[in-house]
Amino acid sequence: MKKRQKAWGGRFKTPTTSLVEEFTASITFDRRLYRHDIEGSIAYCNALLEAVIITEKEAAKIIKGLKEIEEEITNGEFEFRIDEEDIHMNIERRLIEKIGKTGEKLHTGRSRNDQIALDLRLYLKDEIKKIVEDINRLEHEIIRLSKENIDVIMPGYTHLQKAQPILFSHHLLSYYEMLERDKARFLDCFERLDLMPLGAGALSGTGFSIDREKIARRLGFSKVTQNSMDAVSDRDFFIEFCSAGSILMMHLSRFSEDLILWSTEEFNYIILPDSVCTGSSMMPQKKNPDVPELIRGKTGRVYGNLISLLTMMKALPLAYNKDLQEDKEPLFDTVDTIKGSLKIYREILLGLKVNKGIMNKGIDDLSLATDIADYLAGKGVPFRSAHRITGKIVRFCIDNGRDLTKLSYSELQKFSQKFEKDITGYIDPMASINRKLVTGGTAKKRVLERIKEIEKGQ
Amino acid sequence: MKKRQKAWGGRFKTPTTSLVEEFTASITFDRRLYRHDIEGSIAYCNALLEAVIITEKEAAKIIKGLKEIEEEITNGEFEFRIDEEDIHMNIERRLIEKIGKTGEKLHTGRSRNDQIALDLRLYLKDEIKKIVEDINRLEHEIIRLSKENIDVIMPGYTHLQKAQPILFSHHLLSYYEMLERDKARFLDCFERLDLMPLGAGALSGTGFSIDREKIARRLGFSKVTQNSMDAVSDRDFFIEFCSAGSILMMHLSRFSEDLILWSTEEFNYIILPDSVCTGSSMMPQKKNPDVPELIRGKTGRVYGNLISLLTMMKALPLAYNKDLQEDKEPLFDTVDTIKGSLKIYREILLGLKVNKGIMNKGIDDLSLATDIADYLAGKGVPFRSAHRITGKIVRFCIDNGRDLTKLSYSELQKFSQKFEKDITGYIDPMASINRKLVTGGTAKKRVLERIKEIEKGQ
Amino acid sequence: MKKRQKAWGGRFKTPTTSLVEEFTASITFDRRLYRHDIEGSIAYCNALLEAVIITEKEAAKIIKGLKEIEEEITNGEFEFRIDEEDIHMNIERRLIEKIGKTGEKLHTGRSRNDQIALDLRLYLKDEIKKIVEDINRLEHEIIRLSKENIDVIMPGYTHLQKAQPILFSHHLLSYYEMLERDKARFLDCFERLDLMPLGAGALSGTGFSIDREKIARRLGFSKVTQNSMDAVSDRDFFIEFCSAGSILMMHLSRFSEDLILWSTEEFNYIILPDSVCTGSSMMPQKKNPDVPELIRGKTGRVYGNLISLLTMMKALPLAYNKDLQEDKEPLFDTVDTIKGSLKIYREILLGLKVNKGIMNKGIDDLSLATDIADYLAGKGVPFRSAHRITGKIVRFCIDNGRDLTKLSYSELQKFSQKFEKDITGYIDPMASINRKLVTGGTAKKRVLERIKEIEKGQ
Amino acid sequence: MKKRQKAWGGRFKTPTTSLVEEFTASITFDRRLYRHDIEGSIAYCNALLEAVIITEKEAAKIIKGLKEIEEEITNGEFEFRIDEEDIHMNIERRLIEKIGKTGEKLHTGRSRNDQIALDLRLYLKDEIKKIVEDINRLEHEIIRLSKENIDVIMPGYTHLQKAQPILFSHHLLSYYEMLERDKARFLDCFERLDLMPLGAGALSGTGFSIDREKIARRLGFSKVTQNSMDAVSDRDFFIEFCSAGSILMMHLSRFSEDLILWSTEEFNYIILPDSVCTGSSMMPQKKNPDVPELIRGKTGRVYGNLISLLTMMKALPLAYNKDLQEDKEPLFDTVDTIKGSLKIYREILLGLKVNKGIMNKGIDDLSLATDIADYLAGKGVPFRSAHRITGKIVRFCIDNGRDLTKLSYSELQKFSQKFEKDITGYIDPMASINRKLVTGGTAKKRVLERIKEIEKGQ
Repeated sequence: MKKRQKAWGGRFKTPTTSLVEEFTASITFDRRLYRHDIEGSIAYCNALLEAVIITEKEAAKIIKGLKEIEEEITNGEFEFRIDEEDIHMNIERRLIEKIGKTGEKLHTGRSRNDQIALDLRLYLKDEIKKIVEDINRLEHEIIRLSKENIDVIMPGYTHLQKAQPILFSHHLLSYYEMLERDKARFLDCFERLDLMPLGAGALSGTGFSIDREKIARRLGFSKVTQNSMDAVSDRDFFIEFCSAGSILMMHLSRFSEDLILWSTEEFNYIILPDSVCTGSSMMPQKKNPDVPELIRGKTGRVYGNLISLLTMMKALPLAYNKDLQEDKEPLFDTVDTIKGSLKIYREILLGLKVNKGIMNKGIDDLSLATDIADYLAGKGVPFRSAHRITGKIVRFCIDNGRDLTKLSYSELQKFSQKFEKDITGYIDPMASINRKLVTGGTAKKRVLERIKEIEKGQ
Repeated sequence: MKKRQKAWGGRFKTPTTSLVEEFTASITFDRRLYRHDIEGSIAYCNALLEAVIITEKEAAKIIKGLKEIEEEITNGEFEFRIDEEDIHMNIERRLIEKIGKTGEKLHTGRSRNDQIALDLRLYLKDEIKKIVEDINRLEHEIIRLSKENIDVIMPGYTHLQKAQPILFSHHLLSYYEMLERDKARFLDCFERLDLMPLGAGALSGTGFSIDREKIARRLGFSKVTQNSMDAVSDRDFFIEFCSAGSILMMHLSRFSEDLILWSTEEFNYIILPDSVCTGSSMMPQKKNPDVPELIRGKTGRVYGNLISLLTMMKALPLAYNKDLQEDKEPLFDTVDTIKGSLKIYREILLGLKVNKGIMNKGIDDLSLATDIADYLAGKGVPFRSAHRITGKIVRFCIDNGRDLTKLSYSELQKFSQKFEKDITGYIDPMASINRKLVTGGTAKKRVLERIKEIEKGQ
Repeated sequence: MKKRQKAWGGRFKTPTTSLVEEFTASITFDRRLYRHDIEGSIAYCNALLEAVIITEKEAAKIIKGLKEIEEEITNGEFEFRIDEEDIHMNIERRLIEKIGKTGEKLHTGRSRNDQIALDLRLYLKDEIKKIVEDINRLEHEIIRLSKENIDVIMPGYTHLQKAQPILFSHHLLSYYEMLERDKARFLDCFERLDLMPLGAGALSGTGFSIDREKIARRLGFSKVTQNSMDAVSDRDFFIEFCSAGSILMMHLSRFSEDLILWSTEEFNYIILPDSVCTGSSMMPQKKNPDVPELIRGKTGRVYGNLISLLTMMKALPLAYNKDLQEDKEPLFDTVDTIKGSLKIYREILLGLKVNKGIMNKGIDDLSLATDIADYLAGKGVPFRSAHRITGKIVRFCIDNGRDLTKLSYSELQKFSQKFEKDITGYIDPMASINRKLVTGGTAKKRVLERIKEIEKGQ
Repeated sequence: MKKRQKAWGGRFKTPTTSLVEEFTASITFDRRLYRHDIEGSIAYCNALLEAVIITEKEAAKIIKGLKEIEEEITNGEFEFRIDEEDIHMNIERRLIEKIGKTGEKLHTGRSRNDQIALDLRLYLKDEIKKIVEDINRLEHEIIRLSKENIDVIMPGYTHLQKAQPILFSHHLLSYYEMLERDKARFLDCFERLDLMPLGAGALSGTGFSIDREKIARRLGFSKVTQNSMDAVSDRDFFIEFCSAGSILMMHLSRFSEDLILWSTEEFNYIILPDSVCTGSSMMPQKKNPDVPELIRGKTGRVYGNLISLLTMMKALPLAYNKDLQEDKEPLFDTVDTIKGSLKIYREILLGLKVNKGIMNKGIDDLSLATDIADYLAGKGVPFRSAHRITGKIVRFCIDNGRDLTKLSYSELQKFSQKFEKDITGYIDPMASINRKLVTGGTAKKRVLERIKEIEKGQ
């Protein structure tokens, strides 16, 4: 492949070597922006027309050329060239190749600095929309699973120790709440990045009378950026996106931890669908929860991307610096990881089977201890004293191998005179659950209400 | 100090050792939450009263006790005890010490899990309000400085190479835009954390008929949390806060880099106030820009806190785990660092002197090269050709030690016939600046408009 | 407290404000270096004497003064002053206060830049020695526990699914291997930092004829630094230390995960000593594995410190910059966290009880499937075919609720003619374990050999 | 492409979907390990032969097949299949395709868990050797440049303020010291990972009597791993490698910062070769230091990779987990980034031009202030007093626009009686430099000695 002169080569004596070219080129990864680059160029071309910088005929020629190039790329017929550095130059050169000198007019008053800022914002807006859609779909499965298993009770855990009985659906729905916050974070990020940067030029603004507000409307932006130097050097939205992505992955890593634990032989609360598990090349009996494990592992990937971006931006003087080229790969990788993980999580939930009986039996008599303390507190025993008394009852049960729920009324009375007949029926998992009637509590009534609310909201 | 029995000690046979006590205690750092802990306890006490769990007399006694404790702590008369683990237990024990058995009723239906969640939310809401105030104050100085120096022109840089002339105020105002986004991020975080968690109990919700919505109103929360398991294990708002803080510090690190560069002898664009510089223990002539350097360095601190929290939360099974105790120090340190940095930045700007003449002279003739290319483009030369022609002119100037702005009309014509008489006056820094009339451009008219807009908005 | 003039104040007109003073002072945390600072100063004082810069009498006076100050600090009688910035200035001022003008000679040819570099290296060398000692002690408990439980067998896990039977000691000893690598990393770091930096001055070397090699010998360093600019700006050893610390904490987080899982009711393989567990303020029955959880959580802290340092150092121009002041807190916090975690881990192992019977029963018949495949491979069946045949046997057992180890000889023969009489006794956990005779295998013979080797090496 | 049955599929009922297959497959990135995978398999095949598990004829067949496959891959004739997950399975399937049932014997007693551990260690050992070579080559250029410019003097900076005059070579050589430490860290990492893991099986060791020590010798390993569980789950060497890589990149980011500053118009100390700079698509005059900027930016990438790995490993229970699959991409990316950056840095230094005169003139008279203080100290004035006196002289020079080096003897005497005739000639940059004669000092004699030492050592 014969090398062509660089678009900026006029001032230079020595050409870059291939080593440097490969090291500095971004075309291997920024090509994924081609649609947005062309979309932006068409809008810009129209702005040039309206500013009477190019003629109608020229504009038509440019737009036709750009659309053909888009098709070439989509069809895999486009030759990407390392020596043309990036997606912008690759497309521009091809345009000039196709339509001649007129193509040279497209970059009037534009810099790659504002051009890439535009491409990235267009790209990320699209991706956030898709991610929100993926979150919605995953939430839908959570709700479905919660409704289908509304009668399944299980031990609730703190410190991975059985704490209090809960509804399985209540546990599941906590992930719904997390995902809702994730969605809100992505949408806030969307709103903040929804500013049109074109016209910022290299750093000081374009000298041509481009109508930036009109370009913004055309490309579906709400507003335009308000400072050209900030516009070309701002990558806040990348970091904010990766931060929202890190929190999302953290949530999925917690969900995965739950699923991996629950599908151990020891817990045996759920059966993961074969489709998200794999076997062992050595041990024929193995069925490994590969997909949840992998997602847990991919959390590190997204955290790492966040750190890459934060590090890259640290202490960069204004305005644009080449360091910023390192912004794309962490972003793209985060987008791919998040979308993949959300989709695959839906797959997991679609095939998940619940071992209802085992969950139910998992509820430990001791996890009703709080109910005894609450009972006593309800009878006027100061809670700390009630807690102490119950502690002694628990100690008694452990030392004597007794079941807390099966202590007789008289046995209980030895610990406190406050125990009355109504203790019968009180120390029962379902009763305990259904007493948690406050908003956000695990009582079946409340959980069903919450589901209804969610469904109404969607 | 004689050890007291733990509140939860009933079930245990062996006490914790001092080594373990010190390792697990959080009182050394969570004591800063005392006001919020007491505020929350008073609200909870009223809820207990309304739910007829305690009497009016008991409530009054508890509230009086709590208020006295608050005063004791504020006055430094409170003895914090490691063997009572955390701020909650320290206060509760003191309450019982003061008012006896009645004090034991306060924790009825409450867990430290929802209590700490409440304290942290109250605390962070307060701090975010203060941070927003600090940002506003800093922005105010940026605006003031921009207005005072509205006529100062300087080279705008990309890649730390002179690119195009700009207004100094335009450069400054780019930091205003960044701070605005920072503020918005903190406020979004505020909104997302503005949910009242009390009543979530240990994980499943309280069994007592507490009116959570009323507590929320009393404590100034907009809503209540909707899932008790999520409520006790959610630390999203910590991470989101530290992420917003990381981006803010990144911005300040960039600002610092600019200031440090500008106050080198080589740039000499500004003079930092003596008050934010220090000298050398060895070199008597040194005046070091310590404060901007230190803030740049503190960026690492906040990034580190973000990673601490993300790591801590990774793959934790639901609901509460002791790992969460590690949430506080990174948060507190981030709050302190951000507030300190914002305050001190205002101090920097208050005393900053601008070397107007040097900035002005810093504008390189070559940084008007784009204007020549733009000129030619305006005359109908396709931009790429115009760029190439200008590249040759630049090459010519460098090779012959000529000043780009001083080339004669006839010299220019050798490069292109498109140069006309109107080129005189075109290749001038102020003219160049004032052609950047698009929204967000560096033209004085635009910058003044932007300042007016900002001032109106505030 | 009346403010005193700064040691470097000669050139300055406006003093720093209290706000700035507090923001820039390091005395609140660098005071922990006082012993090393004084040790270094005494060595330096002797070097000044030998270089005939001060007299014997002056040297004696200075050294006496420094030793008294050390005692004052140790006894808590020293007044640390924020307005004197750091530990060096606090000590120097006190020295001058005590012995007058002679004290002003100590800093001849020295800068705080090389002084702090010395202090930090002295400090870290000491701490690494202690950490290595702590690792040794923890390893000792691992060995003890391994020997005491040499006959305990349990399921080995991959993907948290039962994989193959192993010795409990084999599992434990894998942590020994990790700790050995940790120790080696700390010692490599030690070796790399064991260079004496004093004499580097502010950045270019001292102009006085100090014998740096002699100072090094006196202070127990192996060598001296070879480039003064590098010497004052090098913080590699901090990062390397925190990296080694991060890996160590990662290992402990894995160990903690194992312990937390094993002490769930579902696994119930071990009983943690009461002394490292705590209870719940609400749920009287709870016994939470707080200490392992907390250590798992503290992993984030050390990772965060590593990132703080890496961020701080990124793109700093040579030589010393104030950013470097931010080096200390992450380092100190890492030192404290590591030492605390190692000590407390020993405490955990000291009281750990093993539920031998439950571990034993935990071995699943299916975890012997590999042995069947191996058996067939031993009989000449290509391994992939053997794996497939065994897969079918496993499937058969699951579908028919059969125990893999209890299939009859004739039943097995239906799957392959290669099964012979010697299959009896082959499909047995202990037999399986003891066939793993290769170096590093779980056979009891091997594990005992490894223990012997380790004990010999120590 | 028709799907084939998985090697581990015997036990499964439902196949994995394409979505899951793509999400879990590693063949897209682990194919780069093919040479090492085949090298390991050949060694393992020989071990099987020696253990009489396969016949000589079978071994020959397998080895021939593997070598052919290696050639197929090298020649780009190999069809990699996603549905065969990873490089191991792709190769094994092809082997069976080529040589039939005999190929099925290769995996006897081996697991992918120990196989991948082997591949990764072989791979990383090779890469570290290459990296060390690259460091050596870069160091060579540093030495060359230092020698060629041994007479160039320049201001040494602290806080980016001129501090004291130094040799340019002294500054350069500080990067040599950093690179030496980097090299040592990579070599320590090499030594620690130089253990042969094969024979660890899935986690408990192989049941076949493989001679692990012999395999190690054959593959060039120093030792074998000592615990099978640790062997399959250890990724310490990845983290340690990325940590060493992070520190290296941090050093290069500092070097880049220096180069970027020095090639600004304001400093103008050096001219970067055109080959490592690029121009602007908009501004014809620009020559941007792209390559140093990009390397500075890539620092974030390597830091991010380090965090990815640390996060991934946090709190993983023993032994192998699928999360570990996420180990490869961060490692590969780090290897590529480091190698590329080192190579390209050499390119930078090869073409670097030094503006000797400008550097020389950059030395500020005030940067000789320390020399005055030192002079006075040499005359018996206590250093603190000498510092104060010099501070006043500096103040006087600034206030009166005087040159410190041009103050008359009598003017100086007004500040102190200790000034004598010998002050003439003392306050001179070269004299100042050459007084820094201590080891590590910037005196020309010392710097030349250091260069000689280095050259001897290489």
